[in-house]
Amino acid sequence: MIALSMGDPAGVGPELAVAAWTLAVAERLPPFVVIGSHAVMAAAARRSDVPVVAVSSPEHARALFAGALPVIDVGHGDYRPGDPDDAGAALALASLTLATELTRHGATSALVTGPIAKSRLARVGFDYPGQTEFVAAACGVAAHDAVMMLAGPSLRVVPITVHVALAQVPALLTTSLITNRADIAATALDRDFGIARPRLAVAGLNPHAGEDGRMGHEDAEVIAPAVARLRDAGIAATGPLPADTMFHAAARATYDVAICMYHDQALIPIKALDFDDGVNVTLGLPIVRTSPDHGTAFAIAGTGTARPGATVAAIRMAGQCAAQRDA
Amino acid sequence: MIALSMGDPAGVGPELAVAAWTLAVAERLPPFVVIGSHAVMAAAARRSDVPVVAVSSPEHARALFAGALPVIDVGHGDYRPGDPDDAGAALALASLTLATELTRHGATSALVTGPIAKSRLARVGFDYPGQTEFVAAACGVAAHDAVMMLAGPSLRVVPITVHVALAQVPALLTTSLITNRADIAATALDRDFGIARPRLAVAGLNPHAGEDGRMGHEDAEVIAPAVARLRDAGIAATGPLPADTMFHAAARATYDVAICMYHDQALIPIKALDFDDGVNVTLGLPIVRTSPDHGTAFAIAGTGTARPGATVAAIRMAGQCAAQRDA
Repeated sequence: MIALSMGDPAGVGPELAVAAWTLAVAERLPPFVVIGSHAVMAAAARRSDVPVVAVSSPEHARALFAGALPVIDVGHGDYRPGDPDDAGAALALASLTLATELTRHGATSALVTGPIAKSRLARVGFDYPGQTEFVAAACGVAAHDAVMMLAGPSLRVVPITVHVALAQVPALLTTSLITNRADIAATALDRDFGIARPRLAVAGLNPHAGEDGRMGHEDAEVIAPAVARLRDAGIAATGPLPADTMFHAAARATYDVAICMYHDQALIPIKALDFDDGVNVTLGLPIVRTSPDHGTAFAIAGTGTARPGATVAAIRMAGQCAAQRDA
Repeated sequence: MIALSMGDPAGVGPELAVAAWTLAVAERLPPFVVIGSHAVMAAAARRSDVPVVAVSSPEHARALFAGALPVIDVGHGDYRPGDPDDAGAALALASLTLATELTRHGATSALVTGPIAKSRLARVGFDYPGQTEFVAAACGVAAHDAVMMLAGPSLRVVPITVHVALAQVPALLTTSLITNRADIAATALDRDFGIARPRLAVAGLNPHAGEDGRMGHEDAEVIAPAVARLRDAGIAATGPLPADTMFHAAARATYDVAICMYHDQALIPIKALDFDDGVNVTLGLPIVRTSPDHGTAFAIAGTGTARPGATVAAIRMAGQCAAQRDA
């Protein structure tokens, strides 16, 4: 049984949970339970006539999943899609908190987080850059040891640096940062994805990976030593590779994950290729945690146009990773 | 009649010219004449039994194109694929020089340049960062007014900065540089591609285009003013846009060219999507100039494995642009 946090009630999280439930049989999804507000979920399900049932536990949810979308209620809320408020943010935080706790304690086998708006949650006391850091802290893992991976049907990418100005990236990259994150990724691909000896393609920072130092020194001085260290540790890493030629189909077939140096180097290719079904996976945690790789989309919430592909993929991947850990 | 410079005789240029000729009817290519070495071309054509004929002029080439691959001979050369030397580099330079001159003087309607190795040509007196700058200088155009565009079936991209270290990119970006290059791109899309009011999608520099200044100031302070200036000039420009969500199919349908801030931001998506048939087009010149978007590929030259898609696309696009200018 997978815990799915509802996300912000004014965003697309509730309707996507409903849509995922309607697709559960066709998509062969593992059973999941929404942690959120029964009132909100019931309202979000009205358009599609999906039955929603309040349950008391994940076990209870399992028994009822085939016939209705089960919800563990964390509090009453109004369903006003596109119109976020502090009460909704508080509900989203309560949902995230309980979903994390249930998973941490083994009551649910994996955590899938619905979309929140960080700036809104900050107003009700959420003091983290994002859900990933919240979950890491709840699990007692230092934020820098929780590694974001984006995974789609075509590609897996790990950005070494994430939400920082591009001008700061060169100085932030260190051999130990790259080595540490790539090592966590390699371990997780084995443990959670069943890839026994994952192949890591490490991107260069500069055009053509610096072309022998003609364009920047970081590829030779910072990234190449990280690749060497990874290889010394028995990890099948190659690079630094010219980033522009890493992402066509033939190149992608040669590795299991691309280790990228900055946000857009990782996210441009995966969103170009797998826009509608990219999954954000947090590696290096004691629990399995995934999320659909999109935001609250307040602008289209409640219109029925949000596409459930990423939520479906996140639930499926969470189930697969949890099963892999159990195997 | 299109002038195709042979490129380095030890690279894949000669065999790709031969392959393009064999595909000319099926691909409905405009007629082209190779500017290079008859001896090299004849040797490169042997594997595929393609007839090669020395011609004295583009007019002569036109008359014979249906029956043989025409070559305007710039000098004898040995065909030793994968084994470049100075004599070959000199031949490549002579080929590029004559092909450029013929086009500049209107004897040929467009220039397609085959792949050279810049470091090799530098040994025989070539004093330019690349063929683009050479052609621009021959045309009396300042290098910074010759704008590189990569064009494939899925996407067109213009990188504002190109072969520089990523750390230098933020400081190199100025409002006037972006405005100037985007303006040249807009003019060329109209004149050469027949897109009367081209839509320009201008990428941000930082993740999420800076997210209101939370990650870097360049998006708001440098790029946004460039977009405003372009719009004031009547150009349909939007941005700065988050780069990671610009390149999926639905997003690409909303613009004609993506104006990107640095090499990999432009080249990652186009090579991910259009790896085998990307064309490099130089905008802002008095002549039409394209080239296949790949290098000499010395490692596979002569093995018959190089794919002609990009050469075919470059010849086709050169013909289309030349026809558009004539229209």
